[in-house]
Amino acid sequence: MSEAPSSSLTIHVLNTLMSQPATGLATHLSQLEGPRLQWMELMKRLDFDTGAYWQQLGYTSFYPYVEAVFMVTEQTRQLHIPLLISPFSYTTYKGSKSTRESKSAPAAGLAMAPEMGWRK
Amino acid sequence: MSEAPSSSLTIHVLNTLMSQPATGLATHLSQLEGPRLQWMELMKRLDFDTGAYWQQLGYTSFYPYVEAVFMVTEQTRQLHIPLLISPFSYTTYKGSKSTRESKSAPAAGLAMAPEMGWRK
Amino acid sequence: MSEAPSSSLTIHVLNTLMSQPATGLATHLSQLEGPRLQWMELMKRLDFDTGAYWQQLGYTSFYPYVEAVFMVTEQTRQLHIPLLISPFSYTTYKGSKSTRESKSAPAAGLAMAPEMGWRK
Amino acid sequence: MSEAPSSSLTIHVLNTLMSQPATGLATHLSQLEGPRLQWMELMKRLDFDTGAYWQQLGYTSFYPYVEAVFMVTEQTRQLHIPLLISPFSYTTYKGSKSTRESKSAPAAGLAMAPEMGWRK
Repeated sequence: MSEAPSSSLTIHVLNTLMSQPATGLATHLSQLEGPRLQWMELMKRLDFDTGAYWQQLGYTSFYPYVEAVFMVTEQTRQLHIPLLISPFSYTTYKGSKSTRESKSAPAAGLAMAPEMGWRK
Repeated sequence: MSEAPSSSLTIHVLNTLMSQPATGLATHLSQLEGPRLQWMELMKRLDFDTGAYWQQLGYTSFYPYVEAVFMVTEQTRQLHIPLLISPFSYTTYKGSKSTRESKSAPAAGLAMAPEMGWRK
Repeated sequence: MSEAPSSSLTIHVLNTLMSQPATGLATHLSQLEGPRLQWMELMKRLDFDTGAYWQQLGYTSFYPYVEAVFMVTEQTRQLHIPLLISPFSYTTYKGSKSTRESKSAPAAGLAMAPEMGWRK
Repeated sequence: MSEAPSSSLTIHVLNTLMSQPATGLATHLSQLEGPRLQWMELMKRLDFDTGAYWQQLGYTSFYPYVEAVFMVTEQTRQLHIPLLISPFSYTTYKGSKSTRESKSAPAAGLAMAPEMGWRK
């Protein structure tokens, strides 16, 4: 029998009101199981207890909790899942770990020619 | 017996890859029921069939579907729930309907004094 | 001479901490001008005075202001530009106006077969 | 004379269409200078050349480039600034570096009592 791919999963919950990791926010990982799933992929679910987190800080949240359901495949064994939360919004994405130092690159943005300008 | 608050719910799913409403994306609304819920609030769930939507466009999505669970209270009877989707990220928020025309307002942004400047 | 396309622009700034339109937040629209721009498109800039907005509410923001620079083309004459703000994050996108009523659609989400289940 | 605070800045640009770091995307850091700024804080600006990045991948982007202007204070010396991009949307936030391993926590989400259920 084929083994299900082992995977490494890291999560990061960020409170975008205070720019702090959401310390103490409970999370739970579940895995879908059943005979009809292809061996190549597994469906997983992350629950984030955001409602209790905001309540403990004194804020009312629109969301009692947040669920994210995603597919783990051969290509996504190394998973990093950030969740950005504010009381009335959230964003999640499949992250990647590479980070680069800021460096002075060839000037980006609009290369302003002298004859150009913003008219207000 | 108290009536559960009636509510109006509009949703808006936007494909941020193409800047198009996600036409044909199936959604489904469920409502939590049980004897222990307070009469003042009801928990509701929206399912968005994002996986099938991206697949039909030829893209692989990390998410087989998206669920958003939220509280309907007296204060949130008029609900507008946008969902912004790309294949590997999504954002949802409790929207509001007011929109204003862009108008020239007192200059925002940095009021640049002549002696200030961006050093590259 | 070709006329620059006239365009309609609406903006919507949403405070995702309180789920309120950011009333009183000043915005300003500028337009890039110069001889080398193609007649088909114009670069525009929106400034949002988010720093002053958060300060007046008693919050410190990481961003003194937010700028969004975008292209207006024949295809994007009817522009709707939302900005979602919290003190340490913001999201902007090219919106679209169509909104649909929530309706019971063919069941989305995972069609759970009886033999499937979430293992915790 | 007081020294301006030295700071470490890392950036991370993530393409949320493909879930890849935006390799080759040029960035540029500028710093506001002028006599009236308080010594405690400095305004900095990051330019991200997103338009050229999407064009090279064959996509049209709404944004010719992205600018993020932010305040560096004593409290924000260690800066991590992610930018999530798709062709018609972007999100930026003040990040933090701590990441935790996913672990089975006290069950989050809705603790479903047997008498509760989702009514479709």
